[in-house]
Amino acid sequence: MRVLGIDPGTASTGYAIVEEDGATLRLVTLGVIETPAKTPLPQRLQTIYSTLGRLIRDHAPDAAAVEELFFGRNVTTAISVGEGRGVALLALAEAEVPTAGYTPLQVKQAVTGYGNADKRQVQEMVKVLLNLTEIPRPDDAADAAAVAICHLQRARLDGLIQG
Amino acid sequence: MRVLGIDPGTASTGYAIVEEDGATLRLVTLGVIETPAKTPLPQRLQTIYSTLGRLIRDHAPDAAAVEELFFGRNVTTAISVGEGRGVALLALAEAEVPTAGYTPLQVKQAVTGYGNADKRQVQEMVKVLLNLTEIPRPDDAADAAAVAICHLQRARLDGLIQG
Repeated sequence: MRVLGIDPGTASTGYAIVEEDGATLRLVTLGVIETPAKTPLPQRLQTIYSTLGRLIRDHAPDAAAVEELFFGRNVTTAISVGEGRGVALLALAEAEVPTAGYTPLQVKQAVTGYGNADKRQVQEMVKVLLNLTEIPRPDDAADAAAVAICHLQRARLDGLIQG
Repeated sequence: MRVLGIDPGTASTGYAIVEEDGATLRLVTLGVIETPAKTPLPQRLQTIYSTLGRLIRDHAPDAAAVEELFFGRNVTTAISVGEGRGVALLALAEAEVPTAGYTPLQVKQAVTGYGNADKRQVQEMVKVLLNLTEIPRPDDAADAAAVAICHLQRARLDGLIQG
């Protein structure tokens, strides 16, 4: 099973494709889609939409997992995150990729087994689980990998419960 | 000049197409795109995106005006508004419709000449300016008409200044 994780935003959208092969997790690709603040917003959203569309065509993920909420920021930032998130969800719907949303708490719990883990601990666990030599950079890409891993853990648990 | 005004949201996106013909404003069409809360979010966003795309193809607006910010709501609502706004801006970018954003204050000032006008006064002015017999319903459609009128007023002022 191959999962596309997305940490949405307008300035920077993190993405990571993680594949589960038996009991092993493997990182297929990861990165960020950055859009310059001086570019008009409609064109920035177009860049996010078309880049995600290309990623989906190139890597054919079976499912997608998108970070759902965020805390402690203001309403203006929330609208901006929502705009990026909206076009990301649209790209997934247009490509007919089944999509789930996870809160930051769900991601932390899935990746570290401990909801109060800090950002650094989550990133260390992503490194360990994906057999990487370093923590993925930048942060938004590491966060996208974490949400993809969260979805794979969920899928495995659902399989255990049903099986 | 024909302007598509949009009042974005995920549950309800208001739209209105207003045409300026000499000194007269004329309402071409207006309505809301409603998406049921029980439909998965990616499909709701797809409905907004495809409906706006069809509106643009059918009515070929020269420009679009989108309500930019909103006040006094919480972060969760802001993300939801942002999601709808993001796919609306994407639909406009994909159709190459030049797009401007206006704050609620700019809209009020343009429509009523008075920034502290209440919602009802703005709606009454929309009715008068468009020569309608009643205030457009629902509210989101009336708000979309107001933002379209705001853009036409701006365009006229810019013309006066440049001319």
